[in-house]
Amino acid sequence: MPSESTHFTLDESQIPTAWFNVIPSMPTPPSPPIHPGTKQPIGPHDLAPLFPMGLILQEVTTDEWIEIPGPVLDLYRRYRPTPLIRARGLEKALGTPARIYYKYEGVSPAGSHKANTAIAQAYYNQAEGVSRLASETGAGQWGSAIAMACSFFGLECRVYMVRASYDQRPGRRAMMQTWGAAVWPSPSPDTAVGQKILAEDPNSPGSLGIAISEAVEDAPKREDTKYCLGSVLNHVLLHQTVIGLEARAQMEKADDFPDVIIGCVGGGSNYAGLAYPFIPDKVRDGKQIRFIAAEPSACPTLTEGTFEYDFGDTAQTTPLLEMFTLGHGFIPPPIHSGGLRYHGDAPSLSRLVKDGVIEAVAYPQTKVFESAVQFARAEGIIPAPESSHAIRTAMDEALACRETGRESAILFGLSGHGLLDLSAYDRYFAGDLID
Amino acid sequence: MPSESTHFTLDESQIPTAWFNVIPSMPTPPSPPIHPGTKQPIGPHDLAPLFPMGLILQEVTTDEWIEIPGPVLDLYRRYRPTPLIRARGLEKALGTPARIYYKYEGVSPAGSHKANTAIAQAYYNQAEGVSRLASETGAGQWGSAIAMACSFFGLECRVYMVRASYDQRPGRRAMMQTWGAAVWPSPSPDTAVGQKILAEDPNSPGSLGIAISEAVEDAPKREDTKYCLGSVLNHVLLHQTVIGLEARAQMEKADDFPDVIIGCVGGGSNYAGLAYPFIPDKVRDGKQIRFIAAEPSACPTLTEGTFEYDFGDTAQTTPLLEMFTLGHGFIPPPIHSGGLRYHGDAPSLSRLVKDGVIEAVAYPQTKVFESAVQFARAEGIIPAPESSHAIRTAMDEALACRETGRESAILFGLSGHGLLDLSAYDRYFAGDLID
Repeated sequence: MPSESTHFTLDESQIPTAWFNVIPSMPTPPSPPIHPGTKQPIGPHDLAPLFPMGLILQEVTTDEWIEIPGPVLDLYRRYRPTPLIRARGLEKALGTPARIYYKYEGVSPAGSHKANTAIAQAYYNQAEGVSRLASETGAGQWGSAIAMACSFFGLECRVYMVRASYDQRPGRRAMMQTWGAAVWPSPSPDTAVGQKILAEDPNSPGSLGIAISEAVEDAPKREDTKYCLGSVLNHVLLHQTVIGLEARAQMEKADDFPDVIIGCVGGGSNYAGLAYPFIPDKVRDGKQIRFIAAEPSACPTLTEGTFEYDFGDTAQTTPLLEMFTLGHGFIPPPIHSGGLRYHGDAPSLSRLVKDGVIEAVAYPQTKVFESAVQFARAEGIIPAPESSHAIRTAMDEALACRETGRESAILFGLSGHGLLDLSAYDRYFAGDLID
Repeated sequence: MPSESTHFTLDESQIPTAWFNVIPSMPTPPSPPIHPGTKQPIGPHDLAPLFPMGLILQEVTTDEWIEIPGPVLDLYRRYRPTPLIRARGLEKALGTPARIYYKYEGVSPAGSHKANTAIAQAYYNQAEGVSRLASETGAGQWGSAIAMACSFFGLECRVYMVRASYDQRPGRRAMMQTWGAAVWPSPSPDTAVGQKILAEDPNSPGSLGIAISEAVEDAPKREDTKYCLGSVLNHVLLHQTVIGLEARAQMEKADDFPDVIIGCVGGGSNYAGLAYPFIPDKVRDGKQIRFIAAEPSACPTLTEGTFEYDFGDTAQTTPLLEMFTLGHGFIPPPIHSGGLRYHGDAPSLSRLVKDGVIEAVAYPQTKVFESAVQFARAEGIIPAPESSHAIRTAMDEALACRETGRESAILFGLSGHGLLDLSAYDRYFAGDLID
């Protein structure tokens, strides 16, 4: 019998002490990254200019469990374990027999799940003597998280922020500066890539692909600097699995187990974090679990992209990854889920979709905001537009249960709050959002 | 021996089931409110046009414990218990032998402690057939919380928002609208008070005193409407005691007990919520606890005000309360702690200061922002400017411990996050804040 409770807390001692690596459980392992110059599979030494060896080894490992270092755990303790909440208000509003649970990562000081990997990445860099990190940010969630993590470890932090966001989101910029980061609008005059683009168009609004190119150029130029990123790569997804491992313990506390597991997907780290610890239940143990990845129909990588090798950035400087992609030149329309506007997806997640383990859906943003508002009124939390793709999907599953009478347990990831996205809500109410 | 842990969580079952009423523990009970017309102590019937009887009875009760109704507990479970965190990063940054703990209310969906009483007030109103609430808000914390609570109980909500805030804080307005509230800039043409002020000055920026007058005028005009407020009165402070009751259980879990208890004070509900459950330890049991209330030096009610009967609003329509006051006509300068810009203070808190149980300090805003930034870099959370007054005070206590070597346990209330206040941080970094 599922528990009568609503809020499933864990004790500090129940924070996972190891990250879960999904690679050994995959029906087909992801293909290796390809060097953009040699077109050969890259080795650890190819990545050394960009990443510390601790993270490179995590990128290629096939070990199933990776111990979380003590200093990382110490910092997780500031906001973890995060809550698992039974969405009783939403269930009632929908009149569904389904049980809806959400794992809420918005309690992190940076407001989203991104802190889980930012802290780990800052740790491994500092441990190897790096004193400065360069990275990019679109809407600002990742930039905020890495700025915070750098402040914890005393690292300098340079964030290339997509120009359009930099101008429209002064709050995000102020957050990063509060944590001590130097934030530059991208394209910037500080890199060759930025200079080239500015020469062609001094008013370029930038894109995530351009910002990545700038950060990737910045890092190898300086002895003290490495590059870091907030999604797509194996080691990033690995760090996020604390979400799913905690959710698993909390579902046990709820005397329940998910029939459906839902999350939004931009680069894939949020959804992987929640879903991957449950993948062996389906793949190895044959449990009937539906995994659903939700993306915006304005950037439909998993639902309409091609599965092939492609670059991670605009300037074609990153290794080639085998993944679902809309093409590295794809510029998504300016929707309000900045965190989901990426042309590619994590290779491991792409492979699991290709192999039919995970299914994908896409929603237009007005449908997404409609459910975000319904969720806020029923449950309280004002969700991030990104996370609201998962809410929309969970609601549609719960409404299907109302039709069939099926009492499914639906678990979705609420990756962050929307308190830095209120202008988008304002525009939604004013009828200014289009699909 | 104090615990080695950092994050002290409680289980849902440990949410307090009764609120704690400090009145029976006070050395001198607060004097009764006085009717503005008759100048006689007011009775329950005088308050009936404004409040439901359930709340009026709580306003006057001398019972020590008031049972929390089931539906209120059900909604508390969405975000409570809130965390108690040992500020290990801050301790290290300060090099102090003190143990610093903070109770964090920013995990509530509205971002502050205000939800604790908003939910209770919406419940009692709905239980007595009220279908619409009118209230005021300054910076927007209270308006957000009551808007959310009304959405939970299906009540209409009208918020009179101080004009200056309405114009400068579109995010706060969007939050309230997301929860379905109707938000009017105050002074508004919708009330006689508002019309009168607009006739004198069509560009009036408004004040909290004016907004209170408008909401107090709105409520009795309609059969379906009552008034509600977010601080000052006994029943509001009562509902906040879940904070201190939880903190008490969490300090036990930490194998520690506070020597100093600190909170910021605007109307007094946040600090009362944390401190009141510990008052009997000092007053009845003679424990050596220092209670410190922190306020802005721009609105120094407790440190420089007069202890006397005064009105709660500008238009002199509310009952007279015996309290520390700067005068009901006092207009505080436009500092960035909107929630602390009130001319008076709760009668019970004022009395405890008058009787020497609680001491008070005042800080200028640049000192406050300086410590807010230091806290964010050491602990992660970007605090509300209001809450940062408590941080400043806790830091000064901890620095004093560094001098004396005293290993005090310092507990402070972190009443909310500052994610809706990032423009103030921006101005602080730009050097635009003055004291």
